[in-house]
Amino acid sequence: MHKQAMTLISLPESRAEAEALDATDPLALCRDAFALPEGVTYLVGHSLGPATIGALRNLRAASEGAWVNDRVGAWNSAEWIHLSEHVGNRLARLVDAKAGEVVVCDSVSINLFKLAASALPLARTRRLVVEEDEFPTDQYILDGLSGLTGVDLVRAAPGKGISQLEGGVLVKSLVNYRSSQLADMAADEASAQSGGGVIIWDLSHATGVLDVKLSAASARFATGCTYKYLNGGPGAPAFVYARADVADRLETPLPGWMGHSAPFEFTSAYAPKTGTARFASGTPPILSLAALNGALDVFDGVSMVEVQSKARALGQMCLMMAEGMGLDIASPLDPASRGGHVSVCHPDGYPLVRALADWGIEADFRTPHTIRFGLSPLFLGYAEIWDAMSELAEIIETRSWDTEAYREKAIVT
Amino acid sequence: MHKQAMTLISLPESRAEAEALDATDPLALCRDAFALPEGVTYLVGHSLGPATIGALRNLRAASEGAWVNDRVGAWNSAEWIHLSEHVGNRLARLVDAKAGEVVVCDSVSINLFKLAASALPLARTRRLVVEEDEFPTDQYILDGLSGLTGVDLVRAAPGKGISQLEGGVLVKSLVNYRSSQLADMAADEASAQSGGGVIIWDLSHATGVLDVKLSAASARFATGCTYKYLNGGPGAPAFVYARADVADRLETPLPGWMGHSAPFEFTSAYAPKTGTARFASGTPPILSLAALNGALDVFDGVSMVEVQSKARALGQMCLMMAEGMGLDIASPLDPASRGGHVSVCHPDGYPLVRALADWGIEADFRTPHTIRFGLSPLFLGYAEIWDAMSELAEIIETRSWDTEAYREKAIVT
Repeated sequence: MHKQAMTLISLPESRAEAEALDATDPLALCRDAFALPEGVTYLVGHSLGPATIGALRNLRAASEGAWVNDRVGAWNSAEWIHLSEHVGNRLARLVDAKAGEVVVCDSVSINLFKLAASALPLARTRRLVVEEDEFPTDQYILDGLSGLTGVDLVRAAPGKGISQLEGGVLVKSLVNYRSSQLADMAADEASAQSGGGVIIWDLSHATGVLDVKLSAASARFATGCTYKYLNGGPGAPAFVYARADVADRLETPLPGWMGHSAPFEFTSAYAPKTGTARFASGTPPILSLAALNGALDVFDGVSMVEVQSKARALGQMCLMMAEGMGLDIASPLDPASRGGHVSVCHPDGYPLVRALADWGIEADFRTPHTIRFGLSPLFLGYAEIWDAMSELAEIIETRSWDTEAYREKAIVT
Repeated sequence: MHKQAMTLISLPESRAEAEALDATDPLALCRDAFALPEGVTYLVGHSLGPATIGALRNLRAASEGAWVNDRVGAWNSAEWIHLSEHVGNRLARLVDAKAGEVVVCDSVSINLFKLAASALPLARTRRLVVEEDEFPTDQYILDGLSGLTGVDLVRAAPGKGISQLEGGVLVKSLVNYRSSQLADMAADEASAQSGGGVIIWDLSHATGVLDVKLSAASARFATGCTYKYLNGGPGAPAFVYARADVADRLETPLPGWMGHSAPFEFTSAYAPKTGTARFASGTPPILSLAALNGALDVFDGVSMVEVQSKARALGQMCLMMAEGMGLDIASPLDPASRGGHVSVCHPDGYPLVRALADWGIEADFRTPHTIRFGLSPLFLGYAEIWDAMSELAEIIETRSWDTEAYREKAIVT
């Protein structure tokens, strides 16, 4: 997360060199854990991670096993009642957090609301700040909180959130969803804290692909989604991180019975659980949570330093080859300033993406011109990226994307 | 929902009479749709409905089918992007709502917050009211909203919410989770509205077991969970109902990208969807939502009048037989004043419930003394209830529950 030197992986200059990198890749075996069909190069792990064998197995165990056989008793027998905290504890290692500092519940949107509201009393000034190129839902949620509380919301220019913070509460993505620009968490935290401000980090595009260093950066608040690089499944519940030394002072604005210290006493008065678990609210979606729990198996024993290094090397290959095709690069060229995806622009980005898909190469598109390639290091290989980018070069050279069928507009991309 | 005469089903006075009722039960065939093991009488459908074949099939299709084979493309190909609204529309018929008035998202806790906050501007006075025996999470959420907004929260005595409303916003369960007491929705709405007040109905213990009449009662706001009588699966997402003529005037306090009219335009300014769909917030838990969608199949073509009648007849059998055993009855004796479960009290309620479980009869327990029997009409039969209550009578008579093993305390019940 700090702008440290990346572990250097020399970029391949031929398919043979790419194959050689695959042969010594410490993460190469992880691919076997994924339920990816043959012939697909999946470059959309930054949007929806693919299914893993572990996620599917856990989902079956929770549904065809526990739900069918134990029914309501599975809250005890399958420990569903502890699942939000259990999965949070497994996730903690991936973001440099401690046991008890992470709980899995609700969505990023809802969790941003909880954290921003509970951070306000800690901030020197009652002021909410968000950058105007921030992921939209982050902006909308702050609009909602501002509307309810009367606290001013300031929309700062891109990159100007810290300088306009003035001791308030800033919601900020560690990795920008569009450009992949990486913020300097430690520097931003130091700057914000020195002025009495608080940052709520949105780690959606960072968790599971970067070596996120919450503790090292003295970060106090974060949330993030689990269906991208963590492969938790579509709409898998999000997480909440609150640093142990502040968590017990926080009051969630959405207190629900699952965050109560004794939910089955059914008392009228809310008494929060110790630590971050207080941010659990209603009953969590157990089936989705079970899939996420299984998906995390693939990270067992995996070094996040290696994950980050490989993601950046794959991203660099993409960008270098895209530059060679004359595409506009919309991500930082320095890999240490990037997240796990890279973006390029092309006036016919959408038909290009559709043409690529016909070759089994799946990328995504964001209006108006952005093509994003997600470089999930656990299931992608160097030769695979070499081949995908070579195919893209050929599609561009032959203009094979330039047909009516490819230009047709989709609802979701 | 109105205190109308129930469709009369004569209570059986022998096992043979119970069998005769089963033989002519229009809902008897629904049992085949459930994945219930042999030898289990499941009386906890009011807490967690059992799995149905349809729910498990849909869950597999969403995970092992769409997620594996279509990956991110399944948002289009499997229409995940419309699933919250699609499932809401299917659910609408069960609560007397129209297409577009129901959306499925988040939990009851979160949805109560959305509705209570968005109802405040419609109420004559800025005042929140909840009864002190209301389900705890409903009370906690109003505490949270009150804390953020400074609006006073009044805790009214049981049954006194309407008389203390004074033009404010009341959160009220249609069926009390403990006693099963049924409110008179139409009368309460008339009373609240005449004073400029607003009621948010919590339908958690009513939906799928009573003939809930939102439109007929002129109700404007409701939420409810889907994992009880709708059998959606553990922690299945909840629903939001807002009447069409008010929905377009409402501002959700938790605006997320899934409630935006054009989420993939990624604009900074929030522009809500038309109607109740604006209450969708973050990305919904698709796997859990897919299971719920499949679970609703069992309601296709089923009359909610018949569901309600059977639930009340089964409940009446339970109570009459429990009364014969000398148990204290903690639910209304008039079936027209009750929801789908019945509660009885016994000083050794917990060991009794555990002893019953050893006979394959599953009921639940709420501290300090309450035993609850859930009468889900789609998978329970008359003879089955006859047998379960006969077994309970024998356990009580022989005091076979009175052992150390049965007295042991559980965490969740």
